[in-house]
Amino acid sequence: MGEKGISQAVIRRMPRYYRYLGELLDSGVERISSNDLSHRMKVTASQIRQDLNNFGGFGQQGYGYNVKYLHDEIGKILGLNQRHNMIVIGAGNLGQSLANYEKFERLGFVITAMFDVREELRGTKIRGIEIHMLDALEDYCTKNQVDIAALTMPKERADAIANRLVKLGIHAIWNFAHVDLDLVDEDVVVENVHLSDSLMSLSYNIANKQKIRENKI
Amino acid sequence: MGEKGISQAVIRRMPRYYRYLGELLDSGVERISSNDLSHRMKVTASQIRQDLNNFGGFGQQGYGYNVKYLHDEIGKILGLNQRHNMIVIGAGNLGQSLANYEKFERLGFVITAMFDVREELRGTKIRGIEIHMLDALEDYCTKNQVDIAALTMPKERADAIANRLVKLGIHAIWNFAHVDLDLVDEDVVVENVHLSDSLMSLSYNIANKQKIRENKI
Repeated sequence: MGEKGISQAVIRRMPRYYRYLGELLDSGVERISSNDLSHRMKVTASQIRQDLNNFGGFGQQGYGYNVKYLHDEIGKILGLNQRHNMIVIGAGNLGQSLANYEKFERLGFVITAMFDVREELRGTKIRGIEIHMLDALEDYCTKNQVDIAALTMPKERADAIANRLVKLGIHAIWNFAHVDLDLVDEDVVVENVHLSDSLMSLSYNIANKQKIRENKI
Repeated sequence: MGEKGISQAVIRRMPRYYRYLGELLDSGVERISSNDLSHRMKVTASQIRQDLNNFGGFGQQGYGYNVKYLHDEIGKILGLNQRHNMIVIGAGNLGQSLANYEKFERLGFVITAMFDVREELRGTKIRGIEIHMLDALEDYCTKNQVDIAALTMPKERADAIANRLVKLGIHAIWNFAHVDLDLVDEDVVVENVHLSDSLMSLSYNIANKQKIRENKI
């Protein structure tokens, strides 16, 4: 489809378009020019056109974008027209906060089960989602369709569990463990959320701003 | 310092170098060639050299990198040689999970207080960190040094609170609210962790892999 060559940078911007278009829809806007959209999103209009052209483009010259159409199309590009069943490994605060995000469900990501090793959590429910013991993972994944596994347990156990999941046929991992997974199967889609890395980027930008300020004085 | 022109892509890779070098240090490795480092990190050796050259480069031809020295220098670049006091706005699951990460402290990010609006949380402590009521924010920030504020409350309140923080002199925001902040002051450093966006990127990559697979058949 020619979509293989699209850079991850473009792909990372698509959810943001989807989010803004959703907000426009919610406030009843039916049509928007790329200039208005660009102003709102603080990116250039040509960036928007370029990004969307990767997928064929959706605008008409001088007529702007149909908000609902563009929102739906980007949703399809992002795979949001499919339901994704997700399990969460690790039912600590982070795992529980994922289970509590109703927003994910509205995007089609439905958390169907959580797993942990702490006996005291057995059978507990978070927003109706049951916490199972980790030794029931194989049984659960055999009996239920699981599309994504979110890993929120300590990094020491991440590789072993990830490879166990892959063996069970789960080919998408949303990894919060503070480690780059070492997977036996290369065909797995991994999306990392490395919170410490994010904090370090923030800290770099603080330090750099300080430096610029000091040089100015 | 010539560091103003360094791309955010390079900056995003630096925490990962820091992380890998920290692991090498922990396992007693004193010196590493850029080839070995590249193999471990799954990036090309020339990428590593290019990235580090942005900051002056730290290797000696044919002699490799001194792990401790490089780790320390990247730490300084990332501003990790300074302590950062951080407050967390929103003491729900996500806020509490941030408070529970001991790892952040080891990197110099010390959560000193949390804030929420729910009366039943008043005075509660998470790992020794007290939850204050949000109306005490001004008082707290006047009496204590705060370098970073992490926002984990609902997006509807994010802009108002962010601008309140900026007025209090806090110029770095770690934003988990599902919105791009609209700040009155442009000189604020914002680092976003948009979990839904991350999930949508994952979903895109799942859909795209499916497409490639189907085209192959």
